[in-house]
Amino acid sequence: MTDAIASNVVPLSWEGDRATGRLLMLDQRLLPTEEVWLKMHSAEDVARGIREMVIRGAPAIGIAAAFGMALGMRAFEGPLHERPAEFSRLHTLLASTRPTAVNLFWALERCARVAERLRDADNASLTDALFNEADQIFQDDRDNNLRLGNYGAALFEGPTRILTHCNTGALATGGYGTALGVIRALHASDKLDHVWIDETRPYLQGARLTAWECVKEGIDATLITDSMAAHFMKLGQVDAVILGTDRIARNGDVANKIGTYGLAVLCKHHNIPFYVATPLSTIDLNTASGDDIEIEQRDPTEVTHIGGRQMAPEGVGVAHPAFDVTPAELVTAIITEAGVVYPPYTDTLPTLF
Amino acid sequence: MTDAIASNVVPLSWEGDRATGRLLMLDQRLLPTEEVWLKMHSAEDVARGIREMVIRGAPAIGIAAAFGMALGMRAFEGPLHERPAEFSRLHTLLASTRPTAVNLFWALERCARVAERLRDADNASLTDALFNEADQIFQDDRDNNLRLGNYGAALFEGPTRILTHCNTGALATGGYGTALGVIRALHASDKLDHVWIDETRPYLQGARLTAWECVKEGIDATLITDSMAAHFMKLGQVDAVILGTDRIARNGDVANKIGTYGLAVLCKHHNIPFYVATPLSTIDLNTASGDDIEIEQRDPTEVTHIGGRQMAPEGVGVAHPAFDVTPAELVTAIITEAGVVYPPYTDTLPTLF
Repeated sequence: MTDAIASNVVPLSWEGDRATGRLLMLDQRLLPTEEVWLKMHSAEDVARGIREMVIRGAPAIGIAAAFGMALGMRAFEGPLHERPAEFSRLHTLLASTRPTAVNLFWALERCARVAERLRDADNASLTDALFNEADQIFQDDRDNNLRLGNYGAALFEGPTRILTHCNTGALATGGYGTALGVIRALHASDKLDHVWIDETRPYLQGARLTAWECVKEGIDATLITDSMAAHFMKLGQVDAVILGTDRIARNGDVANKIGTYGLAVLCKHHNIPFYVATPLSTIDLNTASGDDIEIEQRDPTEVTHIGGRQMAPEGVGVAHPAFDVTPAELVTAIITEAGVVYPPYTDTLPTLF
Repeated sequence: MTDAIASNVVPLSWEGDRATGRLLMLDQRLLPTEEVWLKMHSAEDVARGIREMVIRGAPAIGIAAAFGMALGMRAFEGPLHERPAEFSRLHTLLASTRPTAVNLFWALERCARVAERLRDADNASLTDALFNEADQIFQDDRDNNLRLGNYGAALFEGPTRILTHCNTGALATGGYGTALGVIRALHASDKLDHVWIDETRPYLQGARLTAWECVKEGIDATLITDSMAAHFMKLGQVDAVILGTDRIARNGDVANKIGTYGLAVLCKHHNIPFYVATPLSTIDLNTASGDDIEIEQRDPTEVTHIGGRQMAPEGVGVAHPAFDVTPAELVTAIITEAGVVYPPYTDTLPTLF
């Protein structure tokens, strides 16, 4: 975790040696006004960090969870025959934090394969191998994002005006981004005219995180409320929508941050391409369609309170589905580190693997 | 202004006698957590109150402006020949506060006709007549809203699930509401199943005001972010969208709170009726189409700061068009105090007058 990264932003870093060190997480809840790094000494710390949204974004959650497994096994001091049970407990703990994010399960599965391979090794060796795996997941993510960004940028002749939703940037990944990675790649190749950033209520990942990353990168961007997207599409000022996903089903249905589905419908109405940028680890060929994806329901106070201030009266009902599902027929193309695929996704998605 | 009103909420009231009294405005910026009444002694006070959003909603702005003219002329102490210039100055002052709200110009025009009729009367008589006119505009608005509400409720067999955007209730009008008046009428006639309230960023009129009115009226309502509307439409949980307008052009194009146009597109995609509820005073037959409606651009800090807290980084661009324009072809029907009209609006709107 010491090599250079391809952006000015990174969500995670390691401090100290492997035997006694800790994972640092940039507390994304305090951005954009404060930059505070929290120290995670245990799997429990990491699980809490994921659950409480210190870190978010499907790829970053997967990376953090892998470090959580390494930290958890580092602390194990029991006999070897009790280790599988402890590993299983840690796996369950970390898997329970964000049920929609398939990268989480994918990263934990990579850790499980390491544990299976080293089931007879001593605990120091297993811990070291888990740290190696976490580092590799981290590094792979950055490499993959760079490839993905270049595939995405190649779709445009430029100069292009992109609208994006939520944060899919360095903060959501190992340090470059998926949809925001494509935007970074467009910017680097002088094909980016402008970025429209949906603020992305209720958690404001667009306003707080994507806007912050764009400022750090010198990318020309305009922040809007989610409800303004249609207006600027109607004015002809949006050439394409690019956003990420927390899970893609085998048929191409896309689960992503609430508001994504509405944007896809607006794109169809305005004849604007709707692109989903995602690492392969987010594609879940075991899920047949979006109907089978569990939608996480989050705390209603994330809707009623903003920055700690109450914005709604006591006594009103509140809904907070964190994600929605966009049917595959509204998705123009899916951009991955292995290339770009088009409908019918049931046929094309498996060719990426 | 002493008669009973048809809801538990009122945005304006008069305190004292006409010679020395003042207009009270419920400060809607502090709702739903504080109920503070501000005292308006002059036309300048009223203009500031409208501009700074102490009061909002097209009909309520019109009522307030009429009282502003009366307060302004009450203070006039010059000779009769200088009075038209002062009247004109006050008219300009109040007309400049919110350029999109046609009711404002309509109410000021009613005041101008009073002044024209009484141009030779002494100032006490003119002031008294202007207060009478303001009272009448206030009373007419409530009567008209009740009629409008009943016309709207008659469109539904019930039980019905309505989604609404912004605040078009008692707080936006003389004390009953337009779109929320229809919802009140549905509730009163036991045909209301449920209300979905868009929070309506950036000013959160839905979260702060519509939710507050629904709690006060005992109406079963669920607050959502604007970006969730599509999700609940897709789940089949929205039977109709009803919202208000700040101006309707002769061809039926609708200028309303930012986010309205997007909802109309979503309704079309999901085959959900999209109704606009509005007093006749909001229909502007002198404006040919939505292309001719000026879109007010408001302060970007209303996007970047929520409840006084900074949610976006320094240095990012911000857009804040307060309104958008929905093309007439997306509007299922327009509900007024004179009845309900359907496309083609160029033919049907003039029949209402």
